[in-house]
Amino acid sequence: MNDYSNQRGHISAQFSRELEGVQSELLNMGGLVESQIEKAVDATLEGDSFLAEEAIDLDTEVNAFERSIDEQCARILALRQPAAGDLRLVLAVIKVTTDLERIGDEAVKIGRQAILLSEGGAHDETGIKVRSIAMQVNTMLKSALDSFARLHTEGALSVILTEDDIDEAYLDAREWLVEFVEDQPDTLRASMSYLWILKSLERVGDHAANIAEQVIYLTRGLDVRHLDSAKVRDLVS
Amino acid sequence: MNDYSNQRGHISAQFSRELEGVQSELLNMGGLVESQIEKAVDATLEGDSFLAEEAIDLDTEVNAFERSIDEQCARILALRQPAAGDLRLVLAVIKVTTDLERIGDEAVKIGRQAILLSEGGAHDETGIKVRSIAMQVNTMLKSALDSFARLHTEGALSVILTEDDIDEAYLDAREWLVEFVEDQPDTLRASMSYLWILKSLERVGDHAANIAEQVIYLTRGLDVRHLDSAKVRDLVS
Repeated sequence: MNDYSNQRGHISAQFSRELEGVQSELLNMGGLVESQIEKAVDATLEGDSFLAEEAIDLDTEVNAFERSIDEQCARILALRQPAAGDLRLVLAVIKVTTDLERIGDEAVKIGRQAILLSEGGAHDETGIKVRSIAMQVNTMLKSALDSFARLHTEGALSVILTEDDIDEAYLDAREWLVEFVEDQPDTLRASMSYLWILKSLERVGDHAANIAEQVIYLTRGLDVRHLDSAKVRDLVS
Repeated sequence: MNDYSNQRGHISAQFSRELEGVQSELLNMGGLVESQIEKAVDATLEGDSFLAEEAIDLDTEVNAFERSIDEQCARILALRQPAAGDLRLVLAVIKVTTDLERIGDEAVKIGRQAILLSEGGAHDETGIKVRSIAMQVNTMLKSALDSFARLHTEGALSVILTEDDIDEAYLDAREWLVEFVEDQPDTLRASMSYLWILKSLERVGDHAANIAEQVIYLTRGLDVRHLDSAKVRDLVS
């Protein structure tokens, strides 16, 4: 091996480490927003305003991850000029970071509504709806991040297919809640809090689906955004 | 001039054209979502479900822009390996496209609620609130796109400073609407539609501020996301 290829090998190993570094930081960020959402939902269900504050406070850390990951991606693009799969990975990381940051924002919104609910008006009936959708959304987010970590197309596809279920469950819960308020108008303010929480959970589901779309971009080179889920299944299967 | 520098000059002129091309496509996309939001809001205020459908249908075009711009950015990164300011521009375009696409999504949501309202229950009192916030948000979006087109730091800063006003106006309108429903419980369903429309407008304001933050990244090299607006003013002025 001559000096040049030796140096190339060295640079390339270093480059691989950088790519792995940014990927693993992204997954840490994913783990963080997952726990942020969990805390915010638990705070809602348990009427625990301290836990809600914890979820809200985590956002500083989430934002710092976003800045750091974007910076690393810009540095890799400037210094390493990645091509093909490596370039796609960096571009996917840039997109996914944005989605994770916005999931963090939704956790903050849920936390704020949890604090309002902890001050009075919480009702178990709606809590049950929130719990059920939150569980589905959490599973979806975990699967999306897992499919990103393992570059697993089928996992990503199943996340995309789940989005329709979440949307349906969300619309059902929303309709249920409107009828609940029509029956019991004095629950309006608390019901509004639940409504915002449900809305935030639905948004988290959207972001999880966006992450899964990036996985398919990485593994198949396909841009499946804005396609309906049946079409994505046909393309990917 | 030797052959090499001639060729370099040629490549560089071609590269400049590509960068300008993607920038101008982004601004066209911006113009499109601007008119999409305007149509959706007019549809709400005039109870015009055809206009609402038009706003909704425009989304296909918005999505096509997103795919095309992202593809061009990936191609530029792969083939031109831009550095420094050019790289920042491409990265900013990637971020801004995402925001514009999501503004398009909000226009669709407003359009859907406009259709519901056109079927009955619209009330002028809330229409006035919607109109006032929509006008502020439209101005904000136009200014954000304009500051991007002209790489104008002060314009971008003023957009970021406006976001707080929009948030305040939105929260006021939301509170006003809850009190309105408490007074007149039979307006609940229509009021919910207005609430979603107001929420969408507030999100458009957030996205406009995100675009303005990218302008400051481009002109000053500063990442001002997640800073409060007073801090941004101190940094930029």
